[in-house]
Amino acid sequence: MTETTSRTTALATQYIAVRQRSLDICAELHPEDFVPQPTPDVSPPKWHLAHSTWFFETFILQPHDESYVPYDAAFAYLFNSYYEAAGPRILRTQRGNMTRPTTAEVYAYRAHVDEAMQELFCRKADDEAFRDLVTLGLHHEQQHQELLITDILYILGHNPLFPAFAKTDFLGADAHLSTPLALALAPVVCWVDIPADIYEIGHKGSGFSFDNELGRHRVFLEAYAISQQVVTVAEYLEFMQCGGYETVDLWLSEGWAFAQTLDQQAPLHWHLRDGDWCQYTPAGLEPLRLDAPVTHVSYYEADAYARWISARLATEFEWEVAHDELDWGQVWEWTSSAYGPYPGFATAAGALGEYNGKWMVNQQVLRGASVATSPGHSRPTYRNFFHAEKRWQYTGIRLARTL
Amino acid sequence: MTETTSRTTALATQYIAVRQRSLDICAELHPEDFVPQPTPDVSPPKWHLAHSTWFFETFILQPHDESYVPYDAAFAYLFNSYYEAAGPRILRTQRGNMTRPTTAEVYAYRAHVDEAMQELFCRKADDEAFRDLVTLGLHHEQQHQELLITDILYILGHNPLFPAFAKTDFLGADAHLSTPLALALAPVVCWVDIPADIYEIGHKGSGFSFDNELGRHRVFLEAYAISQQVVTVAEYLEFMQCGGYETVDLWLSEGWAFAQTLDQQAPLHWHLRDGDWCQYTPAGLEPLRLDAPVTHVSYYEADAYARWISARLATEFEWEVAHDELDWGQVWEWTSSAYGPYPGFATAAGALGEYNGKWMVNQQVLRGASVATSPGHSRPTYRNFFHAEKRWQYTGIRLARTL
Amino acid sequence: MTETTSRTTALATQYIAVRQRSLDICAELHPEDFVPQPTPDVSPPKWHLAHSTWFFETFILQPHDESYVPYDAAFAYLFNSYYEAAGPRILRTQRGNMTRPTTAEVYAYRAHVDEAMQELFCRKADDEAFRDLVTLGLHHEQQHQELLITDILYILGHNPLFPAFAKTDFLGADAHLSTPLALALAPVVCWVDIPADIYEIGHKGSGFSFDNELGRHRVFLEAYAISQQVVTVAEYLEFMQCGGYETVDLWLSEGWAFAQTLDQQAPLHWHLRDGDWCQYTPAGLEPLRLDAPVTHVSYYEADAYARWISARLATEFEWEVAHDELDWGQVWEWTSSAYGPYPGFATAAGALGEYNGKWMVNQQVLRGASVATSPGHSRPTYRNFFHAEKRWQYTGIRLARTL
Amino acid sequence: MTETTSRTTALATQYIAVRQRSLDICAELHPEDFVPQPTPDVSPPKWHLAHSTWFFETFILQPHDESYVPYDAAFAYLFNSYYEAAGPRILRTQRGNMTRPTTAEVYAYRAHVDEAMQELFCRKADDEAFRDLVTLGLHHEQQHQELLITDILYILGHNPLFPAFAKTDFLGADAHLSTPLALALAPVVCWVDIPADIYEIGHKGSGFSFDNELGRHRVFLEAYAISQQVVTVAEYLEFMQCGGYETVDLWLSEGWAFAQTLDQQAPLHWHLRDGDWCQYTPAGLEPLRLDAPVTHVSYYEADAYARWISARLATEFEWEVAHDELDWGQVWEWTSSAYGPYPGFATAAGALGEYNGKWMVNQQVLRGASVATSPGHSRPTYRNFFHAEKRWQYTGIRLARTL
Repeated sequence: MTETTSRTTALATQYIAVRQRSLDICAELHPEDFVPQPTPDVSPPKWHLAHSTWFFETFILQPHDESYVPYDAAFAYLFNSYYEAAGPRILRTQRGNMTRPTTAEVYAYRAHVDEAMQELFCRKADDEAFRDLVTLGLHHEQQHQELLITDILYILGHNPLFPAFAKTDFLGADAHLSTPLALALAPVVCWVDIPADIYEIGHKGSGFSFDNELGRHRVFLEAYAISQQVVTVAEYLEFMQCGGYETVDLWLSEGWAFAQTLDQQAPLHWHLRDGDWCQYTPAGLEPLRLDAPVTHVSYYEADAYARWISARLATEFEWEVAHDELDWGQVWEWTSSAYGPYPGFATAAGALGEYNGKWMVNQQVLRGASVATSPGHSRPTYRNFFHAEKRWQYTGIRLARTL
Repeated sequence: MTETTSRTTALATQYIAVRQRSLDICAELHPEDFVPQPTPDVSPPKWHLAHSTWFFETFILQPHDESYVPYDAAFAYLFNSYYEAAGPRILRTQRGNMTRPTTAEVYAYRAHVDEAMQELFCRKADDEAFRDLVTLGLHHEQQHQELLITDILYILGHNPLFPAFAKTDFLGADAHLSTPLALALAPVVCWVDIPADIYEIGHKGSGFSFDNELGRHRVFLEAYAISQQVVTVAEYLEFMQCGGYETVDLWLSEGWAFAQTLDQQAPLHWHLRDGDWCQYTPAGLEPLRLDAPVTHVSYYEADAYARWISARLATEFEWEVAHDELDWGQVWEWTSSAYGPYPGFATAAGALGEYNGKWMVNQQVLRGASVATSPGHSRPTYRNFFHAEKRWQYTGIRLARTL
Repeated sequence: MTETTSRTTALATQYIAVRQRSLDICAELHPEDFVPQPTPDVSPPKWHLAHSTWFFETFILQPHDESYVPYDAAFAYLFNSYYEAAGPRILRTQRGNMTRPTTAEVYAYRAHVDEAMQELFCRKADDEAFRDLVTLGLHHEQQHQELLITDILYILGHNPLFPAFAKTDFLGADAHLSTPLALALAPVVCWVDIPADIYEIGHKGSGFSFDNELGRHRVFLEAYAISQQVVTVAEYLEFMQCGGYETVDLWLSEGWAFAQTLDQQAPLHWHLRDGDWCQYTPAGLEPLRLDAPVTHVSYYEADAYARWISARLATEFEWEVAHDELDWGQVWEWTSSAYGPYPGFATAAGALGEYNGKWMVNQQVLRGASVATSPGHSRPTYRNFFHAEKRWQYTGIRLARTL
Repeated sequence: MTETTSRTTALATQYIAVRQRSLDICAELHPEDFVPQPTPDVSPPKWHLAHSTWFFETFILQPHDESYVPYDAAFAYLFNSYYEAAGPRILRTQRGNMTRPTTAEVYAYRAHVDEAMQELFCRKADDEAFRDLVTLGLHHEQQHQELLITDILYILGHNPLFPAFAKTDFLGADAHLSTPLALALAPVVCWVDIPADIYEIGHKGSGFSFDNELGRHRVFLEAYAISQQVVTVAEYLEFMQCGGYETVDLWLSEGWAFAQTLDQQAPLHWHLRDGDWCQYTPAGLEPLRLDAPVTHVSYYEADAYARWISARLATEFEWEVAHDELDWGQVWEWTSSAYGPYPGFATAAGALGEYNGKWMVNQQVLRGASVATSPGHSRPTYRNFFHAEKRWQYTGIRLARTL
């Protein structure tokens, strides 16, 4: 077996594992749970399962396998997300009204595509471009796995019955931070100091990355400090108890307007039960875990918290330079950097060129990874991005200050 | 067996039949089809099945059966429709996001309530007030059966796959009107003349009616003519081909604005396929049946059609007086009467008083019945009502003119 | 001088008087006050002055005077209200952004048209059709005079400075009702009884009327009682103090939703000052006048008030039949009749056919006249109409009940 | 005369000149033109004149002059813009409905404040903090002078009569760029190359600056080229004629959605007349001036134009470093930099701390100055900022590329 064949075989194995994990995430769901779209940000689980399959069908099977017969021609219209170059698609806001194909048929669609893919792995053993596309498709599926988790969390977390869909609350096993919970009046921050210098930013080496991490380049950073830990639930509760949500000085103008629209001035998925805050988690509605990272906050809340404690959020460059000295991986961390292109950013040709570049305005970069991120999907140069008001991901807060 | 006991036994039998029919309507659905609410007017099938059950539980079992244990206390919040007196409820627009309880559990809920009801039939054999409430509950369920059909039609009719959910298109068996299809340039209307006189309006006798039909009273009608048949698809097509939708003079001001918002200027559920109009029906997407009544038009369209043919819509009184001479029962017929109280209208005490009275503004009365109306549910004094722009019911057009 | 010439001369004199009154209404305004449109219902005073002039120019001068030169060709676009047949027009909601032509220029436009009209009076002395059109134009201008007053009231009444624009509050001179103010706990209603019979409805005789009053016809009314007086401020205050706005049972479903959207649950133009209610009037912000009719209430509030006192609103027929025995003329009175065509209603040919007919859906008829109605503009068959939620007119409440 | 006294005298003289210029800008307006707010971004001219006066009254006269009597206590509510710390204020969207105080009274208010200020100049001759506040107030007024011009342009440019309000079109005198108009098929760009290096960014020295320019710091820039000229009307027309607005690949996702909402796909203030594009300018509707800079484009359009020509927009740092070699000053130039704080940014205490900092999310930085910028108000470190879709300022396009 040649080296390239061997690498293709390994990829075929990885393909099976990644594809299976999407189904594992949905193991506890009922057919009804796969349908709704309670807010435009959230897609139906059924849609994620079909869309990630459509991605392999459209960008790999159809261009690379002449004998491939699409499962159903109508699916291209139903399961394209936003690729203008890949043709028309149903309105994003209509995804939750499409009861057909049923979940069972989507599973059959997945099996149909997986079978064709496995056959193609045999025939394309030496084709590096094919391997690159498959790798992209698997990372794409992993991104949707994280969305699957957060979208299910949103769907079932807005049901008055608050059903569980996993054994643990996800934050459980690893939630115990290395420092004991500070019960002092003011949170104690453990700072890491970084000297002023020119640093290199962006992906290097031969591993996989998205196009928005490429264009490694130099930046100059003035000296700064960055907190080793992210903000905990206990610390955020103190911000709330000190009137953080009612103090206009702490907020960006848009953030203050946002805060006034909230049903309750607290992170998403928090609920008052008999006077105590609980949090809806994959394991159901649970008492707050005080030493866990605070999650499901918007950029506005992260920014206001930082101002309250006389700090600021880090830039994405400050985060990347310091990452080796940080405890990270449980929450996506809002940075003060707007999402934009690195110098020399270039989009791929064709539909895949729409993957990252066309979103580069009015969003904030988040760095790190979360408890919902798929294994092996995180790296220090990864640039996640969301609009400032979004809260349905596992988003948290890390502090910085200029020295 | 006493006479009252016998009447109760008959009612218990009717209860079983009516309740079963709701399930029959849903026989071809998949679990996913029970979930969505693609527009606020349309409720999820699952919700209809649960809400009509909640009605029996709330208004009969709980007040009349001390030993009754509610199936789930949370259901009162989930399945109340609009009864302010019966407590808080989820926002109407959120019904489509409630994946739990699952359809299976709603079926279990129905069985639980049906069992308790059957037991109550035995214990309340002589209780006339009980029988009246059950009768109201069954008529309520029949109203929701019609909505079940039209809501399923809407949900699956907005799916690009246009799946069928019944053997026939509903308009099929009885759609062949007694007069042959007129292919003349202008539709030929067969008029029934009614002389000026004082007439009595409203329900009389001992049979069931809703409160809005009561208060039988006299009205004076000037002489008028009313069409024996409702408008057919062929006739409506001619209106369209003559530019009906583009002629501003034919329309009420609100109607013209409404027409400009339509994706396509045609009845709801009509779709162009290769240049020909088709109609989505319970049997799937079908070629237009030219001799069938036109359905799924708004009041605005009905009013514009009538003006185009130099006629007008009938008042609800004109309809009721003439009904014996009309072919009716396939479509709900828009009347020019706004929905309001009859002289002496009185609301019932308690939550059931909210049944009809609080809707008496800004809606139009529809008379007749449709192919989706449950057997035995129609009568000449029945007053249906919808907002002028609604089209998701089987709504059609009958003409009148003043002599 | 022939009789027709004499009638034309009288009309020319009346023309001058009516036209002058529009200017008199605006006598206290500053140029800035003529501009804004704070809500789509309200038009800028400048627009009213120009639109009523455009009406004479478009429907009389241009078709009947070959030598007439329009003042400015662009004005047809700026000052058409809603006549589709008279060509395109600026969006209704943009009226308040048109600072040009200035008020001074609109006054010049009025003078230009008035001069041409006076010349035409001489040449058309014997032309009855001309006289009919002029009469329509004057009634049209009088309708806009009432809107001028209520729109100015709205514009200045939403300015925190609450400036006055007239010497009296309009309700002043005639506000003292014939019955002394009842300070009893429950309002005392003086009822007029009307027997069941066939009555004639609609305009008769040779005087002016709008097309919607024509088609005199018979109606049968069951016996009823109607209140001699309209509801006073004191009586309405009692409704408020008894929790009228907080009692859901009293309200139509739409009305309850409407009431929840109000900044303050009270009639429009009421303001709390140091714990006491005041009312903004043409004379500025004034203490409530307890014996004056309550004004600026919606249909929903009128309907809820009636239900609170175990009465109902009258139908427009009940009002017309009883009008000789009622004290009326200070407020437009909401009736329970939806606005629709009388049997045999026919629209005029051409643009003027759009005057009344195209509004006949989703509005309620109001009968009577108000303190803002122009002298000579009221009559017992007059049918005013507004949407149920509108409050910026002088709208009030009269009660009825079925005997 | 001491040096500080002399500086205060100079400032008093400058005060008179700057204040007068605001009035000069409005010299051709009629009273009606001062009133409307056709879109929330645009404030009534009357409001600008009053608000800039309120600024001096609130932040200088009231805290520094114990004897000062406010002109009218109600004005604080009417003319506060967004300073939460300075108390409540009318809704921004209601500014156009406030016809009182009249323009004449606003002029009187200005005179009242100016008189008190001149008196204070005498008494505060040695007070440096006072001078700093006055300087800030004058720069604030100059910012509103630019808005006065662009808001008048918007108000009168949306009037179908397109009235002129100035002698020239503002772009006139200086619009002839140094390079002859390229009529080649593809625009010819004259590039300035800048080497990679560490550069210093931000305000230095003793002159006035806003807080957002402070915190001078180092940045590293990779080598880049920047165009010496901004994009001309002729060049932008070519983008349009090549289908720029119809080519989805050229646009950010939000930009494409924005472009679909435009009434016409062209810069704001462009109008088709007999097939030719004209531009509304202060001198009225004029034929396009092909060699003038294109103005009134959004960030989305600037970004799409740059992508069309295989370039990109500059960052604000690239602009500042290169500014000495650029022709600038006619249009504000969209940069690819999101508006955020420099390292070490600190807000002032009190209400003035709200001046810049609270807007630092979801806006883009613009650099340069425009034909509407007040004399002496521009400098190379100035950071203007607007949301990406805004087009009512004189906004234009400069290109860059990474070397």
